[in-house]
Amino acid sequence: MDTLSLDNPVFAAYAIAAALGVLKVMGQGWMTVYRMLKVNAGYASPEDLQAGLINRAPAPDQLEVNDYVDRSRRMHRNDLENIPGFWVAGLLFVLVSPPLWLAQVLMYGFVLARGLHALAYATKRSHEVRATFYTLGSLIVIYMGCHVLWAVVTG
Amino acid sequence: MDTLSLDNPVFAAYAIAAALGVLKVMGQGWMTVYRMLKVNAGYASPEDLQAGLINRAPAPDQLEVNDYVDRSRRMHRNDLENIPGFWVAGLLFVLVSPPLWLAQVLMYGFVLARGLHALAYATKRSHEVRATFYTLGSLIVIYMGCHVLWAVVTG
Amino acid sequence: MDTLSLDNPVFAAYAIAAALGVLKVMGQGWMTVYRMLKVNAGYASPEDLQAGLINRAPAPDQLEVNDYVDRSRRMHRNDLENIPGFWVAGLLFVLVSPPLWLAQVLMYGFVLARGLHALAYATKRSHEVRATFYTLGSLIVIYMGCHVLWAVVTG
Repeated sequence: MDTLSLDNPVFAAYAIAAALGVLKVMGQGWMTVYRMLKVNAGYASPEDLQAGLINRAPAPDQLEVNDYVDRSRRMHRNDLENIPGFWVAGLLFVLVSPPLWLAQVLMYGFVLARGLHALAYATKRSHEVRATFYTLGSLIVIYMGCHVLWAVVTG
Repeated sequence: MDTLSLDNPVFAAYAIAAALGVLKVMGQGWMTVYRMLKVNAGYASPEDLQAGLINRAPAPDQLEVNDYVDRSRRMHRNDLENIPGFWVAGLLFVLVSPPLWLAQVLMYGFVLARGLHALAYATKRSHEVRATFYTLGSLIVIYMGCHVLWAVVTG
Repeated sequence: MDTLSLDNPVFAAYAIAAALGVLKVMGQGWMTVYRMLKVNAGYASPEDLQAGLINRAPAPDQLEVNDYVDRSRRMHRNDLENIPGFWVAGLLFVLVSPPLWLAQVLMYGFVLARGLHALAYATKRSHEVRATFYTLGSLIVIYMGCHVLWAVVTG
């Protein structure tokens, strides 16, 4: 059996979690676009003040930080600090042949943790709530990284 | 035939597109360095105001945001929001054995879209032009993520 | 022998370097958390000003940029601009079967360069010192990307 094929249920779990992570990261870009268009503010570049289909009513303060838009950018940044680490740690984890139950718990746990983190961030829950889900996701990736190192060293 | 070998033309297309993406992301760092040195501004850390080989004429306003330099940083951020998603979605896409023509269209299409996005951003084209190329690249990655999920679920 | 298995010493070197990169990126998040809690400043979202376990003494200026905390965020951003590129370039590099000695030099060299970059950044060494280690890491990733392209084209 090939390790990186859908016949391997550990790889299938990884493929689902990693693909959902892809949709989360790309979707966050679209949440920023949606919010930017909705409030017609939070633009990033001077040329975005030109009148056009996107910006029908230009005004200089559209380049200032707008919390509604910037919140989506902060969510995106937090994703980029955590999800690519999962992508590579998860792939390496698959390649060192972990137990299936452990792979499923960690991978679906990561998806759940990041989903709840996004929900908490978007709805302005307290720092404690957001930090809890961040911690869960981060510890999963750190565990997978350590597991891989251990497997190589004891290999 | 091994899926992840150069004998597989789907993998070869991915390897070309992913490696070009690597050169784009790393090259963007060097564009920032080039612009920072050219205008001697847009530094990021207080210690960068020490006189030295990089900064021969220190001045406090060198830490302020400089659009010429910051534009390259914004291009870099946009890359990081899109290209790592392509790297993992593309790899998973290869592993679920898509048709060759589809893989080539999507992968070279992504490279083209991101190249044109960079050109539009660097030359300050309108938000509409930049958004068009962003959208094309983003939809390609989103499609690949959905294709992978569908392949796993229908296994 | 499977290319992506621990029986392949080139893959083993990659797995060690990539996993250390994962721990570096995730650890940088925790350095930000540690610094934020230590100085009780540098928060990112308005709701972080609510009193709670994390923030026992809220004050409006806690949302301002704090260099001690922001330094860790800048280190994180620099990691994200370099380490994911290594993850994918390194994986592709393994898949085109480079000489073992070259793979080990590049992969452990990257880990060393990024470790020294982090040390130089955290301890506020001069821009020249930081730039030297950045350059070394960046050139390694760029070399691996070119090597992969060359292998595909001459494949």
